[in-house]
Amino acid sequence: MLSSDHSSVVAINLFVALLCGCVVIGHLLEENRWMNESITALIIGLCTGAVILLTTGGQSSHLLVFSEDLFFIYLLPPIIFNAGFQVKKKQFFRNFMTIMLFGAVGTLISFGIISVGAMHFFKKMNIGDLTIADYLAIGAIFSATDSVCTLQVLNQDETPLLYSLVFGEGVVNDAASVVLFNAIQSFDLSQFDSTVALHYVGNFLYLFILSTLLGVLAGLLSAYIIKKLYFGRHSTDREVALMMLMAYLSYMLAELFSFSAILTVFFCGIVMSHYTWHNVTESSRVTTKHAFATASFVAEIFIFLYVGMDALDIEKWNVISDSLGKLAWVSGILLGLILVGRAAFVFPLSFISNLTKKASHEKIHFKQQVTIWWAGLMRGAVSMALAYNQFTSLGHTQMRGNAMMITSTISVVLFSTVVFGLLTKPLVRILLPSPKHLTRMLSSEPSTPQSFFVPLFGNENGSEADQSNQNVRRPNSLRMLLTTPSRTVHYYWRKFDDGFMRPVFGGRGFVPFIPGSPTERNDHQWE
Amino acid sequence: MLSSDHSSVVAINLFVALLCGCVVIGHLLEENRWMNESITALIIGLCTGAVILLTTGGQSSHLLVFSEDLFFIYLLPPIIFNAGFQVKKKQFFRNFMTIMLFGAVGTLISFGIISVGAMHFFKKMNIGDLTIADYLAIGAIFSATDSVCTLQVLNQDETPLLYSLVFGEGVVNDAASVVLFNAIQSFDLSQFDSTVALHYVGNFLYLFILSTLLGVLAGLLSAYIIKKLYFGRHSTDREVALMMLMAYLSYMLAELFSFSAILTVFFCGIVMSHYTWHNVTESSRVTTKHAFATASFVAEIFIFLYVGMDALDIEKWNVISDSLGKLAWVSGILLGLILVGRAAFVFPLSFISNLTKKASHEKIHFKQQVTIWWAGLMRGAVSMALAYNQFTSLGHTQMRGNAMMITSTISVVLFSTVVFGLLTKPLVRILLPSPKHLTRMLSSEPSTPQSFFVPLFGNENGSEADQSNQNVRRPNSLRMLLTTPSRTVHYYWRKFDDGFMRPVFGGRGFVPFIPGSPTERNDHQWE
Repeated sequence: MLSSDHSSVVAINLFVALLCGCVVIGHLLEENRWMNESITALIIGLCTGAVILLTTGGQSSHLLVFSEDLFFIYLLPPIIFNAGFQVKKKQFFRNFMTIMLFGAVGTLISFGIISVGAMHFFKKMNIGDLTIADYLAIGAIFSATDSVCTLQVLNQDETPLLYSLVFGEGVVNDAASVVLFNAIQSFDLSQFDSTVALHYVGNFLYLFILSTLLGVLAGLLSAYIIKKLYFGRHSTDREVALMMLMAYLSYMLAELFSFSAILTVFFCGIVMSHYTWHNVTESSRVTTKHAFATASFVAEIFIFLYVGMDALDIEKWNVISDSLGKLAWVSGILLGLILVGRAAFVFPLSFISNLTKKASHEKIHFKQQVTIWWAGLMRGAVSMALAYNQFTSLGHTQMRGNAMMITSTISVVLFSTVVFGLLTKPLVRILLPSPKHLTRMLSSEPSTPQSFFVPLFGNENGSEADQSNQNVRRPNSLRMLLTTPSRTVHYYWRKFDDGFMRPVFGGRGFVPFIPGSPTERNDHQWE
Repeated sequence: MLSSDHSSVVAINLFVALLCGCVVIGHLLEENRWMNESITALIIGLCTGAVILLTTGGQSSHLLVFSEDLFFIYLLPPIIFNAGFQVKKKQFFRNFMTIMLFGAVGTLISFGIISVGAMHFFKKMNIGDLTIADYLAIGAIFSATDSVCTLQVLNQDETPLLYSLVFGEGVVNDAASVVLFNAIQSFDLSQFDSTVALHYVGNFLYLFILSTLLGVLAGLLSAYIIKKLYFGRHSTDREVALMMLMAYLSYMLAELFSFSAILTVFFCGIVMSHYTWHNVTESSRVTTKHAFATASFVAEIFIFLYVGMDALDIEKWNVISDSLGKLAWVSGILLGLILVGRAAFVFPLSFISNLTKKASHEKIHFKQQVTIWWAGLMRGAVSMALAYNQFTSLGHTQMRGNAMMITSTISVVLFSTVVFGLLTKPLVRILLPSPKHLTRMLSSEPSTPQSFFVPLFGNENGSEADQSNQNVRRPNSLRMLLTTPSRTVHYYWRKFDDGFMRPVFGGRGFVPFIPGSPTERNDHQWE
């Protein structure tokens, strides 16, 4: 029946069967203190790749070649959207400035160190023709941390501060590396001066703001439509479909306008969980929460399976088969640069961030700094996608320099995901021995997507509402803004949210009465 | 960031935006007595196609060309799986023989009449070179009813008997036309005799049985795995992911073995809703129910949008631009043959089916026969896909005969969906004026996916349990089997189900205790 060839049907079957296998094996290894889902998928992918390689007699198996489009169009959006949808918004916004510092400034520092380091070491090693643009691209490629892997290592409930810092940094970092990478590709070295540098900074801010706005707008639009039209009256499926489609539309629109689609869909997720999610029926709430999480979960496993299988694609290894020793050196140097480059911003920037905080529990202590440093060392699919884009774009994979960079990217991704990944869980356990204690200290929220601020009127979670009520008690506007800026911003945002946003866009407490729909209950739905 | 060209990003954006539009407009037109979702999507697709045609100055817009792969690999599986997952199993199996009669024998009758009719009329019309294989293919193409459209016209709760007959027929019919179509493509006319005919009948039965078995096995495997491993203990997302992946795997495996994937995934859905669905946590149950329905809903809208936009693809119209009058004749003749071909099996086969029933409420009355006849007249995406396969397979779309058949297929699909579709709702209302009365007569089930048989022990739905209890009271095996065969089969199936299947594969009443999971409640979850 299908017009596609037999081999692609075989490939889809193989992939789906492997995904099932990963789900089951991942479940069986859940209690294991070393493994996580990504590593399981990566290893299964590697094994399958090896089997395919052996059965096809060492031929290139093109059905397993990494495709940027598949990654950026289908796999990344659900992961990032779900991250925004499930993120603890209070923590995220409380640490917003620190996250931006790490994500934007940190990425720039890491980019600089890796670029300069690579230029310094690789020029002496005779690994093929690499231009200055290539070295800068290497900096951008290896500055992109793997937010997917990080999410699986840290636990949002156990270490909320760290989670929001590392994950928030990951999202901003993704955007920053992609912007950097695009900037490099249109880079004219002969005319580089401070004006051009300022131009790039301006460009980054422009992209950041527009991407965020687009995501917020898409989220608000979905909330408004669902609130106005009472979809739930007829069909809960329509609500779910609209949320899904609008989120995806925001991502693709951002791609269309060359914004940072990752940022857009992340903020769309945040707005949807703050407004839209409260306007739908209870069935829709359960469905969206779990369906988005499932889509994200499957996409993550898919990516790591894919990377694992692709790593053994024989073609690119043939070109550098005579210089495996050199490959080991290159990969080692890159790993070292990643370690140094990340250390060079995590510790200084944490110090700066700590200067602005007064309370001890808001500061980032040394052990936490080490965890942040370590948790962001993994490199993943974004690095792979950027490397393919840079080093295979003109079809000259056969050139030694390019083949060397592709294979060393694969080596770095595999090594950092497996080795650093395996060590993270034990490390977190050693450095932060009593996560329960931490949790209590940092006023965690329940794990349902919920509003940025608990509403003032409220028949639920009374204690938390009271607590945030005390935090923001009547600031004396200007003086308060200078002394405790974030609390003041929070206070006015909350006034605005209650006075204007919620009446228009719905949200917690503003659910209209829908005939036949159960009233909201929060007790046991979220197991 | 994307390596794909700008135009495909634009196309995706356009499509997602149109899907959002269809969801919203479909909701607004819900109360309208003429429209349904398919027609809305088709008309929006047509309008968009027209706008694209005008803006591109009448050029062929290749980003909107119908792709069989997209249809068969991504869009059809969720629709058919969801149909199996949500079908009222009691009704379906009670009418199993009638459904098979309509689906298999009926399709063959319709195929014969349309083939012979087309051969008779078109040979005189000089519409280009068409071989005998082409005429037989036309018979298969126009025998494939559109189960998607039918689902939207009839209501499972209002007319359960008709719904199960028409829908069940649609699924079997899909399988039958695909088998017929494949048989024709490997057809050797010089050697056709009764042996060959028997061979094809054997082939059909072989495909039917193996396809069904594969689907049942996949469903049972998923039930067994989830029951054994207590996925819900850790993560409800794992359960949802596994159900989704196993269902898709069954579909793709069937494609791999050249079975009827539609049948496989349909039976996989039935088994999953009978066993697997009862083994998962309550959150997973809500999520799967609505997520599968949403996926199916979006895929349906997608197909009709697609067909609508593709209909205006200018290339194929150019070839026959000088013979539009002839196109109208060809389309008219085909529509006539469809009407006659369907009448030729619905009324005789209903008569045969009525002979085997004793109770008046089990018989198919004349008005219901007319409704069955009418509801299956629409032709849709399966016809389109088969037509593309037959008439563009060797790259000779430019030939007049082929272009004529493609364009007339489009015309028939558009006309039957829009005109017959628009008339169906009023017709059903005239022919079956009091659906409420019908419902009571035909012992409807609540609309949750639930077990084939209500368990005997049970603290819920007492009345229905009692009723089915009376129906199957101790038959005196052999004599009963001859007089009331279906009840006897039911009785032994139920004994087998309670004694062996449920203890092994779970199912209603056998949910293991999962810490942290709420106990089953059926009261208000399903709005």
